[in-house]
Amino acid sequence: MMPKIETCLSPELTHLHSLETMTVVVADIFRATSCFVAGLASGAAAIRPVAEVESCLEWGKRGYLTAGERDGEKVSGFDLGNSPFDYQHPSTKGQKVCATTTNGTRAIHHAAKAPRVYIGAFLNLNALAARLADEQQDVLVLCAGWKNRFSMEDTLFAGALARKLGHSFAVDDDATLAAISLYQSANADLAEFLKSASHYRRLQKIGLEKDMVFCLDHSRFDVIPVLKNEEVIVP
Amino acid sequence: MMPKIETCLSPELTHLHSLETMTVVVADIFRATSCFVAGLASGAAAIRPVAEVESCLEWGKRGYLTAGERDGEKVSGFDLGNSPFDYQHPSTKGQKVCATTTNGTRAIHHAAKAPRVYIGAFLNLNALAARLADEQQDVLVLCAGWKNRFSMEDTLFAGALARKLGHSFAVDDDATLAAISLYQSANADLAEFLKSASHYRRLQKIGLEKDMVFCLDHSRFDVIPVLKNEEVIVP
Repeated sequence: MMPKIETCLSPELTHLHSLETMTVVVADIFRATSCFVAGLASGAAAIRPVAEVESCLEWGKRGYLTAGERDGEKVSGFDLGNSPFDYQHPSTKGQKVCATTTNGTRAIHHAAKAPRVYIGAFLNLNALAARLADEQQDVLVLCAGWKNRFSMEDTLFAGALARKLGHSFAVDDDATLAAISLYQSANADLAEFLKSASHYRRLQKIGLEKDMVFCLDHSRFDVIPVLKNEEVIVP
Repeated sequence: MMPKIETCLSPELTHLHSLETMTVVVADIFRATSCFVAGLASGAAAIRPVAEVESCLEWGKRGYLTAGERDGEKVSGFDLGNSPFDYQHPSTKGQKVCATTTNGTRAIHHAAKAPRVYIGAFLNLNALAARLADEQQDVLVLCAGWKNRFSMEDTLFAGALARKLGHSFAVDDDATLAAISLYQSANADLAEFLKSASHYRRLQKIGLEKDMVFCLDHSRFDVIPVLKNEEVIVP
């Protein structure tokens, strides 16, 4: 029997899926999981996602670089913001990073009960799809969303991944079918399609369009980050 | 300022919206809200949605017709199933009906804290859109889904309604944008588009394709059912 691919459109709906037997791919395209992929591809040693600024500062005292945003802006006093360009700075090479973001961190914590958790982004789409096709396990794409609401860019990523896997995975759930259909509508120009989406407008307003264009770049890296002992690493 | 239209893709996400200040349109296209529209348009006096078969039987003793399904099939001993054709039978004229369905009832109960709750379906799309455009209140389309999961047909209805209202309502949330995009992809042949969707396949398997074709019929009725004192009526 073919393995299946499902999509969870909000971290609050995670309990509707059988995480215990699935490989979960967490996607927070703008910008957490894109940052993690970019950072690890550029030589960061590990990324520890945490929920609170205070917790991040604690890890900072233990030698981690601190990274994070609130409402789209870098937290004051932190080493890095939540831009993929920050994560690619030479100063991150060989370093561990503790990152606090609103949506991505929440999604990763929800995913943690799965036997295997990958970090997904357009930036590592091809490598990730190839790995999942190799492993032939049931896959759940967990969209981080925005404050637990549906988010367009995460759903488009789910659609892109599902379309790549569709020939060797069963697609039975409506959320995945919708994601594929949306991706087909958006595919010709993802950024243009996203210009009416809420998060794109929010980040554009604070001057972050270049981050988003970068995050939509297709398969620039071939790393496949995995969650292990509460940290994201490339084994 | 223009009123806004938002979409809630699962009853479990209702708390993310400000129901207290919104008009909620509940949609369970296959088949509860389509049944309610068809039944009330055909002369039923009121429909009381309840969660449990036992509760439905209690109301039956008080003179209500009993209606409902479990796993798509009529509950044994009930007067009506969950088919729009059952609801249009001459025997329902002037009668009160107590209906138990899995997803639609749950969604209506979630919606009940809103100041105004309408029952939506493709079957009353135009009349409902005209009423909402008249009233100029913020609107939330609450998709009943399937066991709290995203459902394609309910989302397509949200898209159809939002597209009709788009010129005089603000569309800011990604769920509504996605619903509109999906509806645009599906619009030319809704039934064809839905053939891969999970609920369509489920009902098709038990011989209910004619129900679904009926439920997708556009603006056949002009009733606008409203929830009042836990019953759905046409005032």
